[in-house]
Amino acid sequence: MVKNVLGLRCIKCHKEVPAEAGTYTCPSCGSKGGIMDVEYDYQAINRMTTREQVTKSRDYSMFRYLSFLPIRPESARPHLSVGWSPLYKPQGLGKSLGMSNLYIKDDGQNPTASLKDRASIIAVIKAGEEKAPTVACSSTGNAASSLAGNAAAMGLKSVIFVPSRAPQGKIAQLQIFGATVISVQGSYDDTFRLSAEAIDHFGWYNRNAAINPYLVEGKKTVALEIAEQLNWDVPDWVILSVGDGCTIAGVWKGFRDLYQAGWIERLPKIAGVQSTGCCPLVDAFLEDRPWQPKEENTIADSIAVGVPRNPDKALKAVRESGGTMVAVSDEAILAAMRELGRSSGIFGEPAGVAGTAGLKVLVAKGIIGANEKVVAIVTGNGLKDIQNAIKAVGEPTKVEPSLKELLLKLDERPEV
Amino acid sequence: MVKNVLGLRCIKCHKEVPAEAGTYTCPSCGSKGGIMDVEYDYQAINRMTTREQVTKSRDYSMFRYLSFLPIRPESARPHLSVGWSPLYKPQGLGKSLGMSNLYIKDDGQNPTASLKDRASIIAVIKAGEEKAPTVACSSTGNAASSLAGNAAAMGLKSVIFVPSRAPQGKIAQLQIFGATVISVQGSYDDTFRLSAEAIDHFGWYNRNAAINPYLVEGKKTVALEIAEQLNWDVPDWVILSVGDGCTIAGVWKGFRDLYQAGWIERLPKIAGVQSTGCCPLVDAFLEDRPWQPKEENTIADSIAVGVPRNPDKALKAVRESGGTMVAVSDEAILAAMRELGRSSGIFGEPAGVAGTAGLKVLVAKGIIGANEKVVAIVTGNGLKDIQNAIKAVGEPTKVEPSLKELLLKLDERPEV
Repeated sequence: MVKNVLGLRCIKCHKEVPAEAGTYTCPSCGSKGGIMDVEYDYQAINRMTTREQVTKSRDYSMFRYLSFLPIRPESARPHLSVGWSPLYKPQGLGKSLGMSNLYIKDDGQNPTASLKDRASIIAVIKAGEEKAPTVACSSTGNAASSLAGNAAAMGLKSVIFVPSRAPQGKIAQLQIFGATVISVQGSYDDTFRLSAEAIDHFGWYNRNAAINPYLVEGKKTVALEIAEQLNWDVPDWVILSVGDGCTIAGVWKGFRDLYQAGWIERLPKIAGVQSTGCCPLVDAFLEDRPWQPKEENTIADSIAVGVPRNPDKALKAVRESGGTMVAVSDEAILAAMRELGRSSGIFGEPAGVAGTAGLKVLVAKGIIGANEKVVAIVTGNGLKDIQNAIKAVGEPTKVEPSLKELLLKLDERPEV
Repeated sequence: MVKNVLGLRCIKCHKEVPAEAGTYTCPSCGSKGGIMDVEYDYQAINRMTTREQVTKSRDYSMFRYLSFLPIRPESARPHLSVGWSPLYKPQGLGKSLGMSNLYIKDDGQNPTASLKDRASIIAVIKAGEEKAPTVACSSTGNAASSLAGNAAAMGLKSVIFVPSRAPQGKIAQLQIFGATVISVQGSYDDTFRLSAEAIDHFGWYNRNAAINPYLVEGKKTVALEIAEQLNWDVPDWVILSVGDGCTIAGVWKGFRDLYQAGWIERLPKIAGVQSTGCCPLVDAFLEDRPWQPKEENTIADSIAVGVPRNPDKALKAVRESGGTMVAVSDEAILAAMRELGRSSGIFGEPAGVAGTAGLKVLVAKGIIGANEKVVAIVTGNGLKDIQNAIKAVGEPTKVEPSLKELLLKLDERPEV
């Protein structure tokens, strides 16, 4: 047991149980995974460290917030520098969206180039605490490569289940990290189920974020950083894309923990964005009904999740915060990739920029005000999915090595 | 003129001239570009800031070293967070190379995923100081995407010349950043010449690092960070890949500036690595003769430079430091990609890991000792060149969504 942790609480029946290895489901109401929340002793957190001490910390990683994490301070950690990604205020993008107070949190700037590193590093630390030699997960790609990278850095083996449609870049990346990669010839749902069966069978450490309650705790550090980078003056809105629902749950958990520890004075509204090609949670939220499985028909592979594994925590985050949800087309996602790149030099993958695409819609609808302080999280780097970047931009101008020919070609492109 | 800058000095005839806009060649001996070095007033640097002040700085970017840079402190800067990349001591890699004191500086962790961001951000700041609306360069890819990204963040136009062989990922990235991309149907040498002619013709700001003396100054910040991250106790060796020669020149310039300002007590040896498929500078160094053009025949596209544009500064860096050079095969580069990934969770592009491949050779030869303190710089992220990563690792295991089939397939892979 970690000093600052009281236990795990079921978000459905509110039963609290000890935080023991392997407790992933609620022993009281029988609810399946994705349902337990880590409960902290906020007085213990404040005894361990103060806001002022954190602000002065020279640990430029998510472990500056060690007192808010469910790991033992003395536990072995991999060397990778996860978190403390930049928070930008890009004037060009603000202008093009007509917003005066817009920030971008670029979480593509992480060791394996996505926000998922925040969860995976917790997984390999917990696996180390439990002396598990092998970690495993299923993933649309980013959780996979981040687990493989963090496991390699920690000296652990990893077994990764990916759906056959995962982009080449993500696959190659995790093979470079030495993972055993299982490409499941089926949907993400098939992939998730097979990984669960195999994890049961072999007793591997389970990094499926929707099951393992500690991973949301890693993801929440993005919220802690946003608060600190804004000098603890929280934004009006935080907006990001939603797949399984674990990341948005983590963002909300982070702000709630800070609030309960007395480090921030109010909570932001949380907005979740999905693609119109796969938006079971948006539909459930807007129609105020239970979610139903959907087809997975979008270029934003990281959020192409027809059967979300953490729907309860995700919908709770949006509802409790007084936030909203919105679906955007794949075309709007490609446009957001161009807009972020051209106006601010940030290159996000399709799912990574869906938050920004959704922001545009919510501003146009007047749900988010032009002067409100908004943070859009870019959750993954565009280099992970070059094929879709090419869709967004087309081919370059081809020229023989002659100035004469160049001048002719440029005449055809008067914008230069 | 910037306060801390005395002027530009020709590294050939040692003539010093004022640091004025557009002074790229030596007006005295007539030597072409790649020859002028920025000279500093080290007393002025120490009046501007002390080592202790820098150590406490909360600017986690290369601009914590503003007093060592040839830009006005008040000049507009793009918002991108360039530099302050992590320095790791990966135990697994040290073990597999038999080294006890090995560090990796992962410069793939930069806004556009390569070390070149350090030069490009200086280029767009200088362009801003000179009120140039458009910046241009030729590049094997990374300088291109970094210039495009930084120009976008700064609100400038960019025109980029790339050789037709540049990998898709790099091209897509710079188009996302809104650059006008000219794909030159020829070698890197053809590309460089056409860009020089066009820059002359249009009067664009010139970001060719081998010409513009300020860009090496940006690159040198990687050395300043290495020194600070090692608590100002410099390593015995710094090893990295070499193409045009500007980056290795920048690394040497950084350590020399720190030494002359009295911030470090000794200088490291510098080792430069090229591919056997294109190693004009290694041949010149080892045979102690002038360099000769070579074919560009390597997978490491960022260092496939048959006609290096900064040979004098590069060879000077290696010789003055008492260092060495070595060429490695493409197979050794692919092996280094796997080794870095599997043992430490770092994914470098081929040119990015060539330094590590060269290190292995130099340790085997006894030129670098197993207990010496060595920093290998990974200069670019592997996500930029997925095709070569796939060459390094092969295809994943394909499985139908059934545990029974999985168990059969895993039996064929006893290492899991």
